[in-house]
Amino acid sequence: MRSKSQVQPSSARSSGHEETAAEARRLIRAGAHDGHTAGMAPDYVQGNLVVLPAAMAADFASYCQRNPKPCPLLAASKPGDPRLPTLGDDLDIRTDVPRYRVFRDGQAVDEPTDITSLWRDDFVAFVLGCSFSFEQTLLGDGVPLRHIAAGTNVPMYRTNIDTNPAGPFRGKMVVSMRPFRAADAIRAIQITSRFDVAHGAPVHIGDPALIGISDLGRPDEGDSVEVRDDEIPVFWACGVTPQVAIEQARPPVCITHKPGCMVITDLRSSAVAGPDD
Amino acid sequence: MRSKSQVQPSSARSSGHEETAAEARRLIRAGAHDGHTAGMAPDYVQGNLVVLPAAMAADFASYCQRNPKPCPLLAASKPGDPRLPTLGDDLDIRTDVPRYRVFRDGQAVDEPTDITSLWRDDFVAFVLGCSFSFEQTLLGDGVPLRHIAAGTNVPMYRTNIDTNPAGPFRGKMVVSMRPFRAADAIRAIQITSRFDVAHGAPVHIGDPALIGISDLGRPDEGDSVEVRDDEIPVFWACGVTPQVAIEQARPPVCITHKPGCMVITDLRSSAVAGPDD
Repeated sequence: MRSKSQVQPSSARSSGHEETAAEARRLIRAGAHDGHTAGMAPDYVQGNLVVLPAAMAADFASYCQRNPKPCPLLAASKPGDPRLPTLGDDLDIRTDVPRYRVFRDGQAVDEPTDITSLWRDDFVAFVLGCSFSFEQTLLGDGVPLRHIAAGTNVPMYRTNIDTNPAGPFRGKMVVSMRPFRAADAIRAIQITSRFDVAHGAPVHIGDPALIGISDLGRPDEGDSVEVRDDEIPVFWACGVTPQVAIEQARPPVCITHKPGCMVITDLRSSAVAGPDD
Repeated sequence: MRSKSQVQPSSARSSGHEETAAEARRLIRAGAHDGHTAGMAPDYVQGNLVVLPAAMAADFASYCQRNPKPCPLLAASKPGDPRLPTLGDDLDIRTDVPRYRVFRDGQAVDEPTDITSLWRDDFVAFVLGCSFSFEQTLLGDGVPLRHIAAGTNVPMYRTNIDTNPAGPFRGKMVVSMRPFRAADAIRAIQITSRFDVAHGAPVHIGDPALIGISDLGRPDEGDSVEVRDDEIPVFWACGVTPQVAIEQARPPVCITHKPGCMVITDLRSSAVAGPDD
């Protein structure tokens, strides 16, 4: 499967054809790609997935609404309905994510590539915006991203910033960090301010200790990146935050994407961005 | 004159009437106000003034065009014409600035309140945007400005950043500095990005040494302000930059405003700002 997943998207790209979201989903649905989705269908919005029983869905929707920076809600399905037509006509949330993570009582227990056999008629699927949307725009604008240049995952940290609780969902905000020289940091703030659906503007810049991060070299998730003497660390609210809230809420069952293996939607990044400055 | 200048604008304000630019100019023209213009006609754009002989005007216009952040050109007069109708129907640049500064061969020699007797039929007046425009918006949005809270002038520094030369006009960029906590620094970057006519987004944030400032406590112009441990210094291109370029160019005669004593225009700050984020 892996080798097939490497071949098809790159040949599509080398032929000058820009892969569409529908093509990427078809590939994933067919079992031809089960890895991360960074760089797939690059013009399209990708999202984080959270599937919960309907009994907990109202509280989770409130949690998203009260914490729009870490949890920018793109769409929620009807109970039992695996489709999300506003994100893609053909989108089936049971098959269209490369790899899932299944939680029981707040503990991760499995990482399947398909959740058709686990689906229940009371499940509600939530799709939340993710930083891939703004990273493409930053790169396109000439703002360098070190974790992408290094081919590693962005470093993520649990902060001392409390999210706003809703029902059993609560916990600290998780942030991702990208280092920039000052001029690029300013540009990154300008650009990401336009992407409310993808965590928006940073929540912090500068001294990591002010948000409870003791050592930038030891991220809680992802890989560490160098921060040079002439650079400022810039911190964005991160889509891993709801996974912390799920650990706190301990739902009997919950299914998310595996980090990096996102929902690919038909929304164009350029269409969901706010007006240019 | 001073006492009169203190009374009229404040009584206008205490009566609940928002002073207009035309009213402020009338007061200044009548000799009733010869001090700084901070807080006067607060909804209107204020500008820096540079008056030069026509022989040097084309080079100075190029200098502004090539350095839009320190020198955002709002308007230039026709040679010999003291009016700037796009900035105010009744505006007469010879009488409508509270206090001027006269340079001969690049040296400041006088600070009159009226330049009618000095006006020549080859003079061209340039009006450049100033940070007062965005400061009102920052305050209105709840972003604190320490130099305003302290009632002092903003600190200004000569940097190691070269401006783009044009003819005899050249020199280092001057910046103003305002300290903020991280969340306010992010908001200040977002807001000032909308004000291209008022220096726009910052040119630097963080370590002052990276732009050649050795000691924040010793500004080259204005007054020093405290930068607290949890704050980041944020630097904007400053309208004093052209005065450095004039020192370099040594025009036989040049007239500017006295720093802080600005041209008050009929442009509304809200109208010249770019779209909200």
